[in-house]
Amino acid sequence: MHVLITGAAGMIGRKLTERLVKDGRLHGKAVDKLTLIDVVKPQPPQFSSKVDAAVSDLSAPGAAAKAVAERPEVIFHLAGVVSGEAETDFEKGYRVNLDGTRALLEAVRLAGGYHPKFVFTSSIAVFGAPFPEAILDDFHLTPLTSYGTQKAICELLLSDYTRRGFLDGVGLRLPSIVVRPGKPNKAASGFFSGIIREPLAGQDALLPVPDSVLHWHASPRSAVSFLIHAAGLTREQLGPRVNITMPGVCCTVAEQIEALRRVAGDKVAGRIRRAPDELVARIVAGWPSRFDPRRALALGFTVEKTFDDIIRAHIEDDLGGRIAN
Amino acid sequence: MHVLITGAAGMIGRKLTERLVKDGRLHGKAVDKLTLIDVVKPQPPQFSSKVDAAVSDLSAPGAAAKAVAERPEVIFHLAGVVSGEAETDFEKGYRVNLDGTRALLEAVRLAGGYHPKFVFTSSIAVFGAPFPEAILDDFHLTPLTSYGTQKAICELLLSDYTRRGFLDGVGLRLPSIVVRPGKPNKAASGFFSGIIREPLAGQDALLPVPDSVLHWHASPRSAVSFLIHAAGLTREQLGPRVNITMPGVCCTVAEQIEALRRVAGDKVAGRIRRAPDELVARIVAGWPSRFDPRRALALGFTVEKTFDDIIRAHIEDDLGGRIAN
Repeated sequence: MHVLITGAAGMIGRKLTERLVKDGRLHGKAVDKLTLIDVVKPQPPQFSSKVDAAVSDLSAPGAAAKAVAERPEVIFHLAGVVSGEAETDFEKGYRVNLDGTRALLEAVRLAGGYHPKFVFTSSIAVFGAPFPEAILDDFHLTPLTSYGTQKAICELLLSDYTRRGFLDGVGLRLPSIVVRPGKPNKAASGFFSGIIREPLAGQDALLPVPDSVLHWHASPRSAVSFLIHAAGLTREQLGPRVNITMPGVCCTVAEQIEALRRVAGDKVAGRIRRAPDELVARIVAGWPSRFDPRRALALGFTVEKTFDDIIRAHIEDDLGGRIAN
Repeated sequence: MHVLITGAAGMIGRKLTERLVKDGRLHGKAVDKLTLIDVVKPQPPQFSSKVDAAVSDLSAPGAAAKAVAERPEVIFHLAGVVSGEAETDFEKGYRVNLDGTRALLEAVRLAGGYHPKFVFTSSIAVFGAPFPEAILDDFHLTPLTSYGTQKAICELLLSDYTRRGFLDGVGLRLPSIVVRPGKPNKAASGFFSGIIREPLAGQDALLPVPDSVLHWHASPRSAVSFLIHAAGLTREQLGPRVNITMPGVCCTVAEQIEALRRVAGDKVAGRIRRAPDELVARIVAGWPSRFDPRRALALGFTVEKTFDDIIRAHIEDDLGGRIAN
């Protein structure tokens, strides 16, 4: 089986690559080729099967056709500009997140007689306030960011291309993924990781929003397991509504901080400093905080039970079990 | 006030033009220029103010920029390929309905310092089965046609361009508009008009779906009044959710036929012949039939009370009061 990952140099892309390399198989079939593309060159992993790692901007002419020329059976389309950048650079956000995705869908369609599994990472940013207390699966998408708008549009395209029989799509509305390892990115949600990651690494972290902010989270490990699970769902299981809100852990920033205190102690939790940022607070205020993701649960998607589990996943997967006390 | 109408040669475009010419004003301001564009040349009306009527395909390079070069204060964007054609010609549907609309939105954005009222005609085809008994304003959009997908995408764009301050958008999800005067078009919903229009003109009409089909209707007269009303709504009234399901009359095909019998007699109603068409029946089966359009009603949109009223509007507006007995 040939698997293509776009956005492969990103955090989720790297972790998904690691997981596929470790498993060597995807839903019972050996992965005999892995193609990794991104706007910066992905690091090719040590793998017994063939690996192609290349620089590619899917919104550039010909890039999408080249990406699918060898007809990978499974496409994990993770590439995209993050929410903060899509908000500050309107044109880049639409070019990368909308035109890049559309180019990839079109390349698949125009290949003809090609019908890959197409797993797309959407986001809970497709939803916009005001919200009911818990958002059901049939709640409308009224995004309050350009990023959320672009994701919602791609969901619609994915659904139509699936319905028309050009590919077999599934879109996953990911929770805010925490704890992201490494450096902060430009996502407006970045601080949710920062307030855990930096203290665990012995550094102070800035908290731009009030402690009362409630949000919906999953670990990178869960994000990867969502993607893998989605690739195994059949058309019959999915039906016509192929875009699905993923399960998550709902908690406030205050609860996140208390979880950090329980897992890593007072000294670590004491490294969080309040630094209110109006732009971030405004963006986050329009985001959803709690879902009732019945479809995802019925389809077998699973997630951490508590925010403590999410912190522990980070310590195990990214810190080799070590905390800076 | 300068008003631009795209799709001005279409049925709603012509009736909106007539109404603006008749009123001479729009929400208290004199209409001193009317620009009418379409892919076929719109018929310029007799009007005391200036009228430009031109052929323009908004998806062609430069056409959208040209359309807004004189900065019309109000844009009624009605242009589009209908549902049947968007389903049979995938590429044309996306080019006209998505790329054409996006080009117009982009032309407005790139003009800079220009902030028109932008009234967009969406459709209830943005919804897709299965449905609750009555669809509320916060129900999700899961279109089952490419046309519905394109309209849903344009709604998202309209909302984001409004939020970013590039224009002042409002999208109206029109019911199936009946009775359409003139010749049948390629819309899959065309028969809803045909079974009333043809019998009233002394001709037989084909009914491609079962009598039990339930649907959501408004007259062309109401469609025009929706558009006019929308152009007068303020940003404060609309809030962030600028796309609104319009009110309609919910009835079955059997009830439509009975209404025709009441209004025009047995002989006229007897001109409807059953001619099942699987493609049309399948498309229509995925469409919504009943809404609870609270926002539209709260915002002051109004519609006919009964299907009899809809038939009478056709006889008055399009047949000069005459029925072929």
